[in-house]
Amino acid sequence: MATTYFSKRNLQFLLHEVFKADELTKYDYFSAHDRETFNLVLDSATYIADTFMHPYLKEMDRNQPELKNGQVTVHPKVREYLKAMGDAGLIGAGFSFEHGGQQLPEMISSCVGFILMAANNGMMYTGLTSGAAHLITSFGLPALSDFYVPNMLDGTWQGTMALTEPQAGSSLSDVTTSATPLSDSESVTLGEVPLLDQPGSYKIKGQKVFISAGDHNATDNIVHLMLARIDGAPKGTKGISLFVVPKYRPDGKGGFVDNDVASTGIYHKMGQKGVPAMHLTMGSNDNTIGYLVGEPHQGLPYMFQMMNEARIGVGMTAAGIATAAFYAALQYAKERPQSRRLNQKNHLDAPQTPIINHPDVRRMLLFQKAVTEGSLALLLEAARLFDISQVAEGDEKENAFLLLDLLMPVAKSYPSEMGVQSVSQSVQTFGGYGFTEDFPVEQLYRDIRITPIYEGTTGIQAQDLLGRKMTMKGGKAPLLLFAEINRTIAEASTSDELKPYADQLTAELKRTQEIMASLIPHAQKGDIERYLSDATLFLEFFGIVVVAWQWLKQAVIAKQMLLTQNPQGDDLIFYEGKIHTMKFFFHYEVPKTLGLAQRLKDTEVLTIVSEKELAL
Amino acid sequence: MATTYFSKRNLQFLLHEVFKADELTKYDYFSAHDRETFNLVLDSATYIADTFMHPYLKEMDRNQPELKNGQVTVHPKVREYLKAMGDAGLIGAGFSFEHGGQQLPEMISSCVGFILMAANNGMMYTGLTSGAAHLITSFGLPALSDFYVPNMLDGTWQGTMALTEPQAGSSLSDVTTSATPLSDSESVTLGEVPLLDQPGSYKIKGQKVFISAGDHNATDNIVHLMLARIDGAPKGTKGISLFVVPKYRPDGKGGFVDNDVASTGIYHKMGQKGVPAMHLTMGSNDNTIGYLVGEPHQGLPYMFQMMNEARIGVGMTAAGIATAAFYAALQYAKERPQSRRLNQKNHLDAPQTPIINHPDVRRMLLFQKAVTEGSLALLLEAARLFDISQVAEGDEKENAFLLLDLLMPVAKSYPSEMGVQSVSQSVQTFGGYGFTEDFPVEQLYRDIRITPIYEGTTGIQAQDLLGRKMTMKGGKAPLLLFAEINRTIAEASTSDELKPYADQLTAELKRTQEIMASLIPHAQKGDIERYLSDATLFLEFFGIVVVAWQWLKQAVIAKQMLLTQNPQGDDLIFYEGKIHTMKFFFHYEVPKTLGLAQRLKDTEVLTIVSEKELAL
Repeated sequence: MATTYFSKRNLQFLLHEVFKADELTKYDYFSAHDRETFNLVLDSATYIADTFMHPYLKEMDRNQPELKNGQVTVHPKVREYLKAMGDAGLIGAGFSFEHGGQQLPEMISSCVGFILMAANNGMMYTGLTSGAAHLITSFGLPALSDFYVPNMLDGTWQGTMALTEPQAGSSLSDVTTSATPLSDSESVTLGEVPLLDQPGSYKIKGQKVFISAGDHNATDNIVHLMLARIDGAPKGTKGISLFVVPKYRPDGKGGFVDNDVASTGIYHKMGQKGVPAMHLTMGSNDNTIGYLVGEPHQGLPYMFQMMNEARIGVGMTAAGIATAAFYAALQYAKERPQSRRLNQKNHLDAPQTPIINHPDVRRMLLFQKAVTEGSLALLLEAARLFDISQVAEGDEKENAFLLLDLLMPVAKSYPSEMGVQSVSQSVQTFGGYGFTEDFPVEQLYRDIRITPIYEGTTGIQAQDLLGRKMTMKGGKAPLLLFAEINRTIAEASTSDELKPYADQLTAELKRTQEIMASLIPHAQKGDIERYLSDATLFLEFFGIVVVAWQWLKQAVIAKQMLLTQNPQGDDLIFYEGKIHTMKFFFHYEVPKTLGLAQRLKDTEVLTIVSEKELAL
Repeated sequence: MATTYFSKRNLQFLLHEVFKADELTKYDYFSAHDRETFNLVLDSATYIADTFMHPYLKEMDRNQPELKNGQVTVHPKVREYLKAMGDAGLIGAGFSFEHGGQQLPEMISSCVGFILMAANNGMMYTGLTSGAAHLITSFGLPALSDFYVPNMLDGTWQGTMALTEPQAGSSLSDVTTSATPLSDSESVTLGEVPLLDQPGSYKIKGQKVFISAGDHNATDNIVHLMLARIDGAPKGTKGISLFVVPKYRPDGKGGFVDNDVASTGIYHKMGQKGVPAMHLTMGSNDNTIGYLVGEPHQGLPYMFQMMNEARIGVGMTAAGIATAAFYAALQYAKERPQSRRLNQKNHLDAPQTPIINHPDVRRMLLFQKAVTEGSLALLLEAARLFDISQVAEGDEKENAFLLLDLLMPVAKSYPSEMGVQSVSQSVQTFGGYGFTEDFPVEQLYRDIRITPIYEGTTGIQAQDLLGRKMTMKGGKAPLLLFAEINRTIAEASTSDELKPYADQLTAELKRTQEIMASLIPHAQKGDIERYLSDATLFLEFFGIVVVAWQWLKQAVIAKQMLLTQNPQGDDLIFYEGKIHTMKFFFHYEVPKTLGLAQRLKDTEVLTIVSEKELAL
């Protein structure tokens, strides 16, 4: 088992040197914090990751939860982990003091997620609880919040996101779970609790699938944030409401009764086996009550306001998994002797050399470093914009929000899609051993494969990027992004060593505009199907450009540190390594835009093809 | 479970219409056959695949073999399968009549492998037996052959390839398993059998790892074809000899005694769980005898003469797995309704449309079709060249051999590397369901990941291609290949519809020459490390060019059929689908050469990087 699963040095570099996280403390909301409190939180997360998570990575994979007699039993460490996270205040790290949180920026809480997921991504419990609780505090009445949130933030109750239904996966407008308002007499019959009656109580009926942590024995209750359709609601996404649907609901006497949320199935998955994915059935006994969150029919807008955090979470999960795999591969490459160097093939008396000395292995390792550190940088950029969009005002707030919205599909997809490829290269670095359970990479290869599917598949992200984000508000978001990128380009251009890369990035921005110019006419003609037919390739293209920017940004800081701080020892090597990896990214990854641009500007449509042509 | 796992129509098209397999029957060696006998063999393989293999795909994955008390128990169907394969003559399909075979071309026996591996790649037993037996018949004395081969070809005994050692994976020159000649008196003490004394008996001591099918209870004996070093042999690859080392050796009285080949470990793998991978220890009790195959110190050349078949086998395994995943994804895409078409997003009253109607899903399916059918074509090209190199004479033989040698690293790697990506797109087509055990794709995604590692990793293949095959005999092989490709280009150029693609392929050949021109000087200067530093990217580039050729070749035939045969119904659609998929390959895959060529012609070396720069 690899002992290093992330680089603390790199995290410090990104947080403090590149993104200057403590600048956020100038905003009132974050003013109680400073660099030291930020680092204390990360230390606390690292302690929990080291103690309760990383040692159980394989064990949890080997012993996936099963559904027996309607009960789901998970690894005993999950309860300890949840308690430790609650005690450390990490589940509520991003919540306001008012709601019992630490009022920490998303930059910090997303780093917590990164560390935890690098340690053991099968323990993906607390991010779900935070997200669910956040929906309640943001949109629910105080009564709802007061009753549920404290138990969630201290790790006693699990939160979930219950969106997907058997017939409605990517298409939430087809959600059919029903919510029927309770009459007063029904309320009494059902033992409805007056306190919770305030937000509006409904009888819930329907099914939800793929509900992560949807049932288990490591918490005393499960609180589902569930989408359902109130009787008579409009069709489509405009008729979906958000409800709190607990596993056990209060009986009004200080106790709880079963809320008729039945675990009717458990998915056996390829990876992330530590956390159960449930099929839930509500209302089999006509006895499930849900409590409306916020206004009727506003469920989807509410969900979407949480979506950015959830997608940063998935991106961080992918970046964490790929980082852990990279460090495992790196350690193996340093220790495993095999063959001689290529220029000394015939020196048979020489001992074998560690495989890290083979250029092909170095290339694979540099690829993994470039992808994982580039992904983490992009995600921290997104988290920083998220924070500013929450606490700033006026144009600053609006611009941050627009930029975040634009970057979000990339910040979710690039770490996921490229993370899958990166972990594949980690496996390849191990050769045959990478395919065995003797090393962690085979598990990480399975685990990370879910990330391009979670929270909107890559195809959905691509439609979001090209179909909405590139064109919203007259295309203002890409203009803002280009201005940001040009700022980095200007900084880089003052260095002889970095200028060629700055120029290359300028060329990529021009290429982006050319592609948009060739695509936009389809949208203007209303042919959305044609406009979006290669949206996934556009997302891939755009991801490379944006991560190239993140690498140039890191190189600018590294160069500054080299020029002004006279770093020595490990610090010197660290900064040189950053510039080296930036160059690798520009020389090996950026050229992929050539082929993508050629296709994206191509006028031949090939996605119109009959089923039979495909099938025969 | 998907019921279709390969396309019989496509196999017929490639075998008979594109590659005209029955032209091989003009050679004496294959003259007993015709198109009908070829097809009978494929029908027989399909029957076995349908009956003994495909129904047990999941079951074998869920119940991986375990090593208990030194015994390895595999799924009971394995024995039935081996018997059926033996009875049908399929293990010895490619062997000469003299050795009890059917004297079938590799084109046909590799198609058998494709069908079997598409059905259930976890039953990867018989290819190993064929390969092992083939080494004995090719290089061993008749006594050895007569004793071992009939039992292997009828499925009663398992054959294995025992090359890899703990300290010698990709580096066979570091094999240390020892072979000590037996004196006459020792032979007697050990109960050595006179018959088998003829080829030379040796005491074997050492360890082998990752030996697929290295021990199990579905055959009565296991026959290892093992590399070992005779005492005093030269260092490196020039001192390695080949031995037959059975699990049970004959006792000279018609019975057998244990040959001290102990199963000391079993690997638990990410995929291909149906077949055990063993750690074997020879000579713990100083009682393992091995029988020399052929001349001393010729082990590696012998192995390498079998390597092309083994690599075609791995390529077919990858192509088979990816094909099965493609058909599963295609079926799901036709059946799964989700959302509305992009130009009708707001038609909420309309029913949801099957996801095959979304352009992004079509693109994913076309990618899978282009990769899997392109891979199969390339592998059949290689098999055809293999056959000609075996049975032709003079220049024809030599040229076929050179071309095969050049194409082999591509024909092994392209199906494997792109197959991994193709199955990943199959998973993505399913969305969340693709990650669950409810559908076969999650298993196939795990299974196929071994193929870029088996029989020489992609990195090793790349070094073979660029380091040897491109330059051997003064670069004659690429010249021969270009001539072949130009023949296809000339044929395609007669059609207005195909000419643009022919021109594009001409441009790719020019690009290949440019890349070589920029790389060769490094080799000429003797800087092999620099010359090969991006060899894997060259392999990727070359693979795209070669598969583009295979697609153009298919399109030429499809076009001819459309113009001359007036096909109707499914045939018409089939040929149109071929041309459509060829275009897809040229518009979506071929542009990737732009970025690869840019990197390959780039002068900046980045694979020189310190361990610490990578690690910090």
